[in-house]
Amino acid sequence: MKKWIAIALTMFTVTTNAQKIESPDGVVQLTFEVKDSIPVYSVSYKNQPVLLKSKLGLEVDNGPSFTEGFGIKDFKVNHADEAWQPVLGEVKQIRNHYTELIVYLAQPAYQREIAIRFRLFNDGLGLRYEFPEQANLNYFVVKEEATEFALPGDAKAWWIPGDYDTQEYNYTTSKLSEVPRLFDKSYDGNASQTIAPGTLQTPLMMKTDNGFYLNFHEAALIDYPALHLSLDADRFVLTSHLTPDGQGKKGYIQTPFHTPWRTIIISKKAEDILASRLVLNLNEPTKYENTDWIKPVKYVGVWWEMIMGKSTWSYANINNVHLGKTDYSKLQTNGTHAANTNYVKKYIDFAAKHGLDGVLVEGWNEGWEDWFGKSKEYVFDFVTPYPDFDVKTLTNYAKAKNVQLIMHHETSSAATNYERHFDTAFAFMDKYGYKAVKTGYVGNIIPRGEHHYSQWMVQHYQRVIDKALQHKVMVNSHESVHLTGLHRTYPNWIAAEAARGTEYEAFGGNNPEHTTILPFTRLIGGPMDYTPGIFQTQLDYYFPGDKRFVQTTLTKQLALYVTMYSPLQMAADIIDNYERFPDAFQFIKDVAVDWDDTKILSAEPGDHVLIARKAKGKDEWFVGGITDEQARTLNIDFSFLPAGGNYEATIYEDGKNADYITNPQSYHIYKKKVTSKTKLVARLGRSGGVAISIRKI
Amino acid sequence: MKKWIAIALTMFTVTTNAQKIESPDGVVQLTFEVKDSIPVYSVSYKNQPVLLKSKLGLEVDNGPSFTEGFGIKDFKVNHADEAWQPVLGEVKQIRNHYTELIVYLAQPAYQREIAIRFRLFNDGLGLRYEFPEQANLNYFVVKEEATEFALPGDAKAWWIPGDYDTQEYNYTTSKLSEVPRLFDKSYDGNASQTIAPGTLQTPLMMKTDNGFYLNFHEAALIDYPALHLSLDADRFVLTSHLTPDGQGKKGYIQTPFHTPWRTIIISKKAEDILASRLVLNLNEPTKYENTDWIKPVKYVGVWWEMIMGKSTWSYANINNVHLGKTDYSKLQTNGTHAANTNYVKKYIDFAAKHGLDGVLVEGWNEGWEDWFGKSKEYVFDFVTPYPDFDVKTLTNYAKAKNVQLIMHHETSSAATNYERHFDTAFAFMDKYGYKAVKTGYVGNIIPRGEHHYSQWMVQHYQRVIDKALQHKVMVNSHESVHLTGLHRTYPNWIAAEAARGTEYEAFGGNNPEHTTILPFTRLIGGPMDYTPGIFQTQLDYYFPGDKRFVQTTLTKQLALYVTMYSPLQMAADIIDNYERFPDAFQFIKDVAVDWDDTKILSAEPGDHVLIARKAKGKDEWFVGGITDEQARTLNIDFSFLPAGGNYEATIYEDGKNADYITNPQSYHIYKKKVTSKTKLVARLGRSGGVAISIRKI
Repeated sequence: MKKWIAIALTMFTVTTNAQKIESPDGVVQLTFEVKDSIPVYSVSYKNQPVLLKSKLGLEVDNGPSFTEGFGIKDFKVNHADEAWQPVLGEVKQIRNHYTELIVYLAQPAYQREIAIRFRLFNDGLGLRYEFPEQANLNYFVVKEEATEFALPGDAKAWWIPGDYDTQEYNYTTSKLSEVPRLFDKSYDGNASQTIAPGTLQTPLMMKTDNGFYLNFHEAALIDYPALHLSLDADRFVLTSHLTPDGQGKKGYIQTPFHTPWRTIIISKKAEDILASRLVLNLNEPTKYENTDWIKPVKYVGVWWEMIMGKSTWSYANINNVHLGKTDYSKLQTNGTHAANTNYVKKYIDFAAKHGLDGVLVEGWNEGWEDWFGKSKEYVFDFVTPYPDFDVKTLTNYAKAKNVQLIMHHETSSAATNYERHFDTAFAFMDKYGYKAVKTGYVGNIIPRGEHHYSQWMVQHYQRVIDKALQHKVMVNSHESVHLTGLHRTYPNWIAAEAARGTEYEAFGGNNPEHTTILPFTRLIGGPMDYTPGIFQTQLDYYFPGDKRFVQTTLTKQLALYVTMYSPLQMAADIIDNYERFPDAFQFIKDVAVDWDDTKILSAEPGDHVLIARKAKGKDEWFVGGITDEQARTLNIDFSFLPAGGNYEATIYEDGKNADYITNPQSYHIYKKKVTSKTKLVARLGRSGGVAISIRKI
Repeated sequence: MKKWIAIALTMFTVTTNAQKIESPDGVVQLTFEVKDSIPVYSVSYKNQPVLLKSKLGLEVDNGPSFTEGFGIKDFKVNHADEAWQPVLGEVKQIRNHYTELIVYLAQPAYQREIAIRFRLFNDGLGLRYEFPEQANLNYFVVKEEATEFALPGDAKAWWIPGDYDTQEYNYTTSKLSEVPRLFDKSYDGNASQTIAPGTLQTPLMMKTDNGFYLNFHEAALIDYPALHLSLDADRFVLTSHLTPDGQGKKGYIQTPFHTPWRTIIISKKAEDILASRLVLNLNEPTKYENTDWIKPVKYVGVWWEMIMGKSTWSYANINNVHLGKTDYSKLQTNGTHAANTNYVKKYIDFAAKHGLDGVLVEGWNEGWEDWFGKSKEYVFDFVTPYPDFDVKTLTNYAKAKNVQLIMHHETSSAATNYERHFDTAFAFMDKYGYKAVKTGYVGNIIPRGEHHYSQWMVQHYQRVIDKALQHKVMVNSHESVHLTGLHRTYPNWIAAEAARGTEYEAFGGNNPEHTTILPFTRLIGGPMDYTPGIFQTQLDYYFPGDKRFVQTTLTKQLALYVTMYSPLQMAADIIDNYERFPDAFQFIKDVAVDWDDTKILSAEPGDHVLIARKAKGKDEWFVGGITDEQARTLNIDFSFLPAGGNYEATIYEDGKNADYITNPQSYHIYKKKVTSKTKLVARLGRSGGVAISIRKI
């Protein structure tokens, strides 16, 4: 006890000094102080305020909070400058260059200590709370995290409403001050949906009135609920709001523990937001000893036709399945079941013919007749194929053609059931040589009361990754929590959906600007399995009179392979449509999905994105440019190419009258010799795009 | 549709007739009718009303309820008279003799049907709801079950308050009308406790003013939340109240489905309640092909010394364990860890010497330092022994002495974690030859929000039994849901705690009457691992000045082996104490735990219980008699013995001045020749007992 009082005294003598650190280039500045016993920080950029004095802290549900009564015990400043190579990525090498401040805080009334760690990069910062193991701090329950981000004024934001179970919304663009008025109009329906009033989801992109682009998110979300931001639209203060569990608790903590990083990317240029590697850098290096089995994947799949309603996941027209009791061999097939042996063979043939890596098959296993909306726990067993899906024949067939089948584990959000079947499900994958799995979490979570983004589910997604690692399986998780750069640490988490993807083009539509915003929001956390490549955008092609349509031109669908980064990319349309447009399909065949380098040529959230990328290990480049609902001219400067080289570019551009509503399939393809000095003007129709493949001559 | 209307019309022509059935002996009568479209039943016994008109129904959370709008579609009456042999039991053979009425009800507004099934036995009845699979009825969520039991008037009841997480309470004896006044005084604390105001737990025992003994409970609780009874203390109406999950839902149902049976045992004699096999008869016969491995078990254990605080489950004085990271081999032992190799060897020696079957060892595995009250999920792995517990040495040592070690799986109520470790935990048991496991569920349940008695946990206990079956392991579940006769169907569920057991003698005390009530309440559902046999009742023997004491005489502890039926019985005291009182211990050595026959000689809840039982397959009888806080004389009529035989009885009786407070260890043992004509007067001290072993001469 005496020792502690001594520390406390020492401590308070230090607290009078505010601490200030800068990013390596001096541009980003952070000030930390303990004011009236409360930790407070502020951030500026070239001496312009970015965040005003903002409180830090964490409320505890079952004991004293970490919100006040603090004194500073010690400081530590570190510098780091290192480089690392991602297993798969947008660039070959990433520089991790920061100034670190660790503030050791003591709460003498409770004889306990915590630390707050800040890392300042040239393009922003991260901060996190650290709770060392100590006599008076072993376990606690989080009531709420109280991290403030106090903006100096109003800002334009690209936002989706806070929701504990889905991010599958179109974005709303508005001033922060307008959010309350627009909030209730900002969302449509979802199979599992728990709106958190007054909060916004991260990554949250905004542009301040004085020209800063700011991106708020979190990095390295492990063992903790996902972050939302509560908005005080009068004071322009954002405060952390964690996803609760069914009891309203926000995290069961055992020390030593640290929270995820709270991240802010700061720039005067929108392009720098997309070029930032801050979130990845704040994740830990992978500990995987061998990553040879983690490979990029381009794939087709038996999927889009079920999404639009042309086929079914289900095999029979029944609505009450008892797995293991329902005898499918005695049931009549409904005639619309797509995942049948003969049909899948066509997809394997197609993938083989066009050099694609894999074929995803959804609806291959028993249980889809009543899988949804019943809170049914034993909904799938993940190992029993429908009678018309011959898994042995198909795996051999695919293997002979050097194509991999991609497993599909829809859980119907019965996570407990999935965990019960982990071992048999992954043993089944081992047996048949599956190397990748798409997981799905449609509907409300079981354990009932948990949310898609609550701590238990965050831990569950991690358990899936760990289990997959044991079997050298790559995971593409759908309806899972937002990504936070964990693919650095767990590179077999190859991609995720976790946003409104192409499927919603059939469920109500994605606004034309949607894919110009996603790189600034969802993709800040990591690769998205957006499933582009829909050539037949108008669904009345299948269903006369159907007014649904994919809200892009065909060319824009091509451009998405470049603008929407993912090492796992689907060619999502029915293969018949690729056979109708083989010249356009050539781009999808050619485009790389893993990269040595990436150049953000031009971008503005909600308006347009133009990116050039160099294929991994090849002197090939690909350019993608997209626009929102406005027709647009993009000036493409080829100075990203190495000087002196001669290249042939194949340009896939919107036709002259191309338009996402009236004329989406109008495109024009031509070739052109290009060098680093070339400048090209691309004309994009409304919600149009341009895609360019470039080869060394 | 037309077909349905036809049925509906037919139906309503039938509804005018009330249906009446009787028990095989005509004593119990049931009347059923649909009145104002609501199903209603009433029960009488020799024409005296037992239940007045009581409504039947079930409220649905996500659709129309099954509470009104009914018409009768059809009736069916069946008769059954069969006999069956329990694997382990109180009697060798059980007669299942009943009259059955099935009422098929239609709800034309929703074009759906249900059935209500009644079975009338000579000592009471069961009823349940049945939901056939049909076009308009596949899935629904239960809001509440609305089964009424309308008593004609006030009654004396032996009750514990409704609680979703524990039954570990002393009983309150009062009139039903007094329950509201006494409710808040009826419980003390528990590690997990969720009082359900206004409700009582089952089995609920009562005695009406006109002399009926009534017992309300449920049979065959499968896939459904446990039953409580909501009390209207003005009208004397009990209504079913199911245990909710964390979302307040009361069961996710997929058809075909039937609820557990709601049971009422009816008699004019208290003894008949204890002799009733009604609950067992309402369970399904076992489907186990082989039951040779299911054997009665008498055991000692490393347990009571931790309960009273003399030793610890934990190995080290730390309070923050990370399983797999915390290196116990580098920790100093706390010196109080009981489950160490040398000490356990003594227990094995003792069991071998005295012919006991097994030794339970608690605290053998890593994790006990911080196992409790933290909502910690990864709290145990069920396979990693502490450094001082050499599992290989001990299993070999035990095997050589023909003693079995009994596994202990404390889950700390982290049921998800237990399920994740099922396979490794049971493989570990296979490897070392464990044949029985004691499971424990101390603390609040994970999945958080679920309760010990909610549907998910009821399913979990079943999963444990199923997993144990795969490994031919017997299960003794503690802190689990009340038993409902499922040991008929799943005979490896050999016993459970699920009530206030001996441990509470160290945690606040069990009232002297407690064990005279338990046979009428908790044990109606099945065997209880009460863990009797504490000879050193006063704890100041260990801790000078400690006022805690086991609230019985030593002799009463012996008698409990007969009065508290279980095929799994512990000799719960530290073995040193048995060596101090070898003559008294002889009864524990001798007493059977599996029976050919049972005679309830005399009983009154809250006062006394006197039972004689015949050992399975032997001409040996055992008698146990206990009293409450009143000294009492019990007249024992040996007419239960076969006429003509000569027997030697060894009588263990309270000493002349024996008293549970002042002189608990005073006992007297003597032998006496007895025949079926013998009558014996036993004098029991306050909270005393008498135990008799009888052998053929």
